Amino acid sequence: MSNPCIICVAITGSLPTKENNPAVPITISEQIESTQEAFEAGASIAHCHVRDEAGKPTSDPDRFARLKEGLEKHCPGMIVQLSTGGRSGAGKERGGMLSLSPDMASLSVGSNNFPTRVYENSPDLVDWLASEMITHDVKPEIEAFDLGHIVQATRMAADGRLKGPLYVQFVMGVKNSMPADEPIFDFYIETLKRLAPDAQWCAAGIGPAQLKINEWSIAKGGHTRT
Amino acid sequence: MSNPCIICVAITGSLPTKENNPAVPITISEQIESTQEAFEAGASIAHCHVRDEAGKPTSDPDRFARLKEGLEKHCPGMIVQLSTGGRSGAGKERGGMLSLSPDMASLSVGSNNFPTRVYENSPDLVDWLASEMITHDVKPEIEAFDLGHIVQATRMAADGRLKGPLYVQFVMGVKNSMPADEPIFDFYIETLKRLAPDAQWCAAGIGPAQLKINEWSIAKGGHTRT
Ligand SMILES: [Zn+2]
Ligand SMILES: [Zn+2]
Ligand SMILES: [Zn+2]
Ligand SMILES: [Zn+2]
Repeated sequence: MSNPCIICVAITGSLPTKENNPAVPITISEQIESTQEAFEAGASIAHCHVRDEAGKPTSDPDRFARLKEGLEKHCPGMIVQLSTGGRSGAGKERGGMLSLSPDMASLSVGSNNFPTRVYENSPDLVDWLASEMITHDVKPEIEAFDLGHIVQATRMAADGRLKGPLYVQFVMGVKNSMPADEPIFDFYIETLKRLAPDAQWCAAGIGPAQLKINEWSIAKGGHTRT
Repeated sequence: MSNPCIICVAITGSLPTKENNPAVPITISEQIESTQEAFEAGASIAHCHVRDEAGKPTSDPDRFARLKEGLEKHCPGMIVQLSTGGRSGAGKERGGMLSLSPDMASLSVGSNNFPTRVYENSPDLVDWLASEMITHDVKPEIEAFDLGHIVQATRMAADGRLKGPLYVQFVMGVKNSMPADEPIFDFYIETLKRLAPDAQWCAAGIGPAQLKINEWSIAKGGHTRT
């Protein structure tokens, strides 16, 4: 198979707590253990968030460093992707871990609504995060919450603000943002391929959309996140 | 013709100044005069912003009231659409003119990036503006800067937060937001018709995109803004 299916495991995320689900790995050692299980089951990318002592999302570079080191030791060959998402910090704090030169980091290139707030990724911050990724040789995973984010990523790749080939994740199922809609999913793929023929994509469904999105991704040739 | 072409004229907008273009109407009486010319030339909707004494965009309900009154007198039968856009105020200020019960008002239902900043339309503010439009019997023109905004409008119409039939404007050509792209334009129409079959649409191209967008709108059966 020339385009093997990459399985991407999102450990922890930024929202769930032990109260929601006692099985959620929160400490660094719990995260490493849980990722190792997924790695042994075939996952090849670990999408990582970290928490502080109180269990709150943080961008603390020291915690990211410990997680990265543990994953490199226990999951040799696994691709470590650190989140620069907005739930864990504000402004340039969000990119403080990029100097660790992880294999990959997530990158939002536009703004959109989330269930109760605006997910703010100002043009300046986006450009700064992208330039840090070039400096530290980090491959971005573009988090596309809307069609315009896919288009913006292709423009940034075309003018050198992002290093190609692009790797884009379609995110669907967040309230007040794009729902899981199959014609739109198909158009995402079509538009990405039209504007950046060498791009690769994966997709993540949030909440009840997760299984549907995984099925579509596998059927349509993308990578999946579990 | 069962679906006559509605021509929508945007007088002034929120950005141009007399320094950019001495012909831009800024005072209320200049705006009324200029709209009357467009009305006599066939425009049927006036999309209105107002400026303060210093020429800065404002949401001042008194100024909107004077403009609305003048337009009703000089352009009888013309549809008056007041802007609730984010350049002229913050938070609920943006909806202060809705109690004037204009025929229409613009409404953004999502957030996106603008050339140098985030265009913030938080879920709470969107819902409040929409409810004010229902209270004061104002027909919204949805300003869609991305595909997700079209989808969100159809969800709001389906659950009663917006009164149908929807009237959606596709906005293209704003830097860092959706460019003028014909396959995407076509998909906007297709998606709107699929999710809200009774919806109508118009389109606005910003800057150099204006003529192209007008051509596409006319060719594909939408209303146009000049
Ligand atoms: Zn992924
Ligand atoms: Zn994440
Ligand atoms: Zn219009
Ligand atoms: Zn406007």
